[in-house]
Amino acid sequence: MEENRFDVIVIGGGISGLTAAYTIKKKRADAKVIVIEGKDRVGGRTLTVPLVGANGADRWDLGGQWVGACQTHVIQLLKELGLETYPQYTSGQKLQQLGGTKVTSYSSDIPSLSFWALIDLYWHMAMTDRYQSQINVADPFSHPRAKEWDAMSIGAFLNKTLYTQGAHDAVEAACRVVFGCEPSQVSLLFYLIYIRMAGGLEKLLETKQGAAQELRIKGGAQMISLKLMESLGKNAVKLADPVASVHQTDKAVEVTTETGWKGSASFVVVATPPKAMEHVDFSPPLSSFRRDLMKCMPMGSLTKVILTYETAFWRDAGLSGEIVSNGGDSVLSNCPRGPLCLSYDACTENGSPALVAFLGGNLAVTYGAITAKERQNAVLEHLSTFFGPQVCTFLDYAEKDWNLEHLSHGSPVSYLSPGGMGLYAITVRRPEGRLHFAGTETATIWSGYMSGAIQAGEASAMAVLHRLYPNCLSQTELEEIRPFIADTNEGKNENGGGSVFSLLKKDVEGCSDFYWWFLTTTLGLGLLAGSVYLVQKVVNKDNIESWW
Amino acid sequence: MEENRFDVIVIGGGISGLTAAYTIKKKRADAKVIVIEGKDRVGGRTLTVPLVGANGADRWDLGGQWVGACQTHVIQLLKELGLETYPQYTSGQKLQQLGGTKVTSYSSDIPSLSFWALIDLYWHMAMTDRYQSQINVADPFSHPRAKEWDAMSIGAFLNKTLYTQGAHDAVEAACRVVFGCEPSQVSLLFYLIYIRMAGGLEKLLETKQGAAQELRIKGGAQMISLKLMESLGKNAVKLADPVASVHQTDKAVEVTTETGWKGSASFVVVATPPKAMEHVDFSPPLSSFRRDLMKCMPMGSLTKVILTYETAFWRDAGLSGEIVSNGGDSVLSNCPRGPLCLSYDACTENGSPALVAFLGGNLAVTYGAITAKERQNAVLEHLSTFFGPQVCTFLDYAEKDWNLEHLSHGSPVSYLSPGGMGLYAITVRRPEGRLHFAGTETATIWSGYMSGAIQAGEASAMAVLHRLYPNCLSQTELEEIRPFIADTNEGKNENGGGSVFSLLKKDVEGCSDFYWWFLTTTLGLGLLAGSVYLVQKVVNKDNIESWW
Repeated sequence: MEENRFDVIVIGGGISGLTAAYTIKKKRADAKVIVIEGKDRVGGRTLTVPLVGANGADRWDLGGQWVGACQTHVIQLLKELGLETYPQYTSGQKLQQLGGTKVTSYSSDIPSLSFWALIDLYWHMAMTDRYQSQINVADPFSHPRAKEWDAMSIGAFLNKTLYTQGAHDAVEAACRVVFGCEPSQVSLLFYLIYIRMAGGLEKLLETKQGAAQELRIKGGAQMISLKLMESLGKNAVKLADPVASVHQTDKAVEVTTETGWKGSASFVVVATPPKAMEHVDFSPPLSSFRRDLMKCMPMGSLTKVILTYETAFWRDAGLSGEIVSNGGDSVLSNCPRGPLCLSYDACTENGSPALVAFLGGNLAVTYGAITAKERQNAVLEHLSTFFGPQVCTFLDYAEKDWNLEHLSHGSPVSYLSPGGMGLYAITVRRPEGRLHFAGTETATIWSGYMSGAIQAGEASAMAVLHRLYPNCLSQTELEEIRPFIADTNEGKNENGGGSVFSLLKKDVEGCSDFYWWFLTTTLGLGLLAGSVYLVQKVVNKDNIESWW
Repeated sequence: MEENRFDVIVIGGGISGLTAAYTIKKKRADAKVIVIEGKDRVGGRTLTVPLVGANGADRWDLGGQWVGACQTHVIQLLKELGLETYPQYTSGQKLQQLGGTKVTSYSSDIPSLSFWALIDLYWHMAMTDRYQSQINVADPFSHPRAKEWDAMSIGAFLNKTLYTQGAHDAVEAACRVVFGCEPSQVSLLFYLIYIRMAGGLEKLLETKQGAAQELRIKGGAQMISLKLMESLGKNAVKLADPVASVHQTDKAVEVTTETGWKGSASFVVVATPPKAMEHVDFSPPLSSFRRDLMKCMPMGSLTKVILTYETAFWRDAGLSGEIVSNGGDSVLSNCPRGPLCLSYDACTENGSPALVAFLGGNLAVTYGAITAKERQNAVLEHLSTFFGPQVCTFLDYAEKDWNLEHLSHGSPVSYLSPGGMGLYAITVRRPEGRLHFAGTETATIWSGYMSGAIQAGEASAMAVLHRLYPNCLSQTELEEIRPFIADTNEGKNENGGGSVFSLLKKDVEGCSDFYWWFLTTTLGLGLLAGSVYLVQKVVNKDNIESWW
């Protein structure tokens, strides 16, 4: 069994896990590292597949596909791996179907909504950006309004603050693609910290320069993982063998897989979405905090469709290929909505024309209930609303319902349900004994994106190196990965995180029963009296100017 | 393999699954039925254990323990099984720690809160009971405010409608024990339908006659499952073998367990909490609706503690043993709260004195992070605040953290996260091919309780019988189990449930941008003008009486 003794076992062969292994090997070539992956491929939530294109076979992404120049971690790694990027096509008119089912075109970054809806949407974006700028990524629960915002879903926040269906539809469509769920399912506080970790709402949502959907990767996004695997050597990655149990002793961690493979290591990096570990047998059990976090952090629902064509006919018609939609009109009996939230131009670097379209949240779930043929018909009918009947002349058609993906059970990211944020920041990236955690969900910069996966992979690798080879990191490096290092103080996370007990905040302090009742009652009576007077004035046709 | 061919395989040996098997055998003694259970015992979320008591060994419940005379399904089954009940002890003063950390006593059903907090709490209960009475159990999403209520957590609703910490604490303590989570984690619409299925908030919460905590079962609640197993015969229940895969063909369902046992049946009843099936390999996959429901329906966190004593010293002091608490003062460094939400007298039918105490929601999670000894000290210190130092003189002490329970991963019940209710009623009890669903989560009466488990077990059994032996059910029986019968109409649930597409409600209809802006703006300006006038009047000391 000596051959199965490692310095580090990495669980999960997605971008984050492979980056962790790569970073360890880069710093210490003598370190013995293995990556254990349950799927029969690397790449996690990135998956590049060959399809028939106008110039013969070409490759498209059925998973994560975009990066931005502002995402320094992924840009740096792409450079190291010798991978190149090319810009997302954005020229021409964009189309939208928001606040109603009429399709209209626009060319700015913001959909051409009605006057009121535009004000409403700007107000939402301004308010959201003001709130998110106040959030401390390491300790979101320290914000005075944290508990209130965590008890509220994005949907409840929209219901409270938006007045127009157009603005509501725009945020809903974004939520369906960004998180793969409905606004009513996500903690508002998570929405704010997620935007915070991306550096702003515009950066998160847009395709323009400096935003997250600015660039695509030549050869497809799965190339990152394939190149990392190549660099590690094929024997360093064990595929198609899900982990069954993880046993920690004082000196090592023993990992057993479903096929019976056993290995032990000084440290383990768990680089999967939190929930993917829910049915693995950990002994001793994972902390109560992490077990609870897994309950509150489901994975979104997203279905991605690629359609390849002979020509980019939308470009010829002056369109960018970008649509944003509330689902529009019914295209299926009994179902009041069409399937799509978003589409983009997906022509490759080789010039093979294609469109990419997304079904997210309830649209993915609902259209996941019918046959693939019915779903394809619905997608084509909805797409034709925007681009005409030519959408049916595709050369190849591929769809990926990530809810059916082995071990992942969803995409694009794990989100926090309302009420779950008290545990998130203090738990998600906190080591437990000899277990360290990576995966894009644990990142502090661009969490949820490929760049976040890389940041978390690098940070967890450094944290493990720090324990394997004390003093191997510089003070600057140590500072950067502080949230990923085990704390030594019981109950209190010294590493920039809040107290693990912070979710039991004492609310009784500072809240006086009488004060609130007095305030609200008098204010209410005052407003009532004012209104009554106002009505009387109008009814009595008194001199209205004299009010002021 | 012929011996492993059954009419029905029941997955799950809790009360619901065993009741399903028992009901089938009662109606058709010739039916071949087997129950497959992953744990090494029957009973699911009921568990009765022997402890040292004042009169030697006696038995106490570490899981579900109460029933009420109003819960007809469980009362009827107890009678059939020859099991008896005895009343929960409720005489004497109750103690509370709400709205602050001071302990006060009361004897009514409602805690002795401050004047304002009492008004606040009554208002909450009245409003909740008015809302719940409007909910259609079969189709909660048909309520005009369903989407709004589903987007809102109970916590957000409390933040919006309650003004006093006392009332807030009371609802929070109830939520922690009823659902095992924080108010901020539960969909308000689920709270309403849950109360609806129990027949009212008071019935759900209280120990008095007609409520859910009125009676206890002689010998403990696990007796129900043990008696059912006895009646089925030992060979009809296969223990300690979790199901690994379920494969449906046109004619049968093949079930394989983790140890490699294989069986096939005409129908399968899945009688587990929804999430317990998340990692079972279903082919074809479960519907997209059920897969999504599993994501949105986590299990609560509840830790139950039993302390046995020589004498019921609290009774001698005129106390009922009942406490309700917000956690009170800190009993552990760094942690601002004590561990308990609730306690009750737990003396057995044999007169063995005991107390039962609960840690629920964040209290269970937080106190789950420390050692058993530290937790015991914290529980004793908190309990002594109410009952004095005598609480430390226990004869035996047992605790059960249900989050650590194999396969269940929580207790007492699965709840719906905000935004998940669109799928709940149309999915939770809807058969999929040859799979039928039971478990207390699928009940329409007293869902979440033992009575609900029995109702669902019986209904799913009848639904399967109806398919095995057409015309074996009377019209009345058929009507009663309609929600548990497969629908035949694609996309539309004819069985009293809503359309499976109802979660894609078209919101655009009936919502005019301008109307809302006009209304809110004019109303806002009107109120503002009134207030300004009011202030001027006061400042100018005009004749205030003339307003009216």
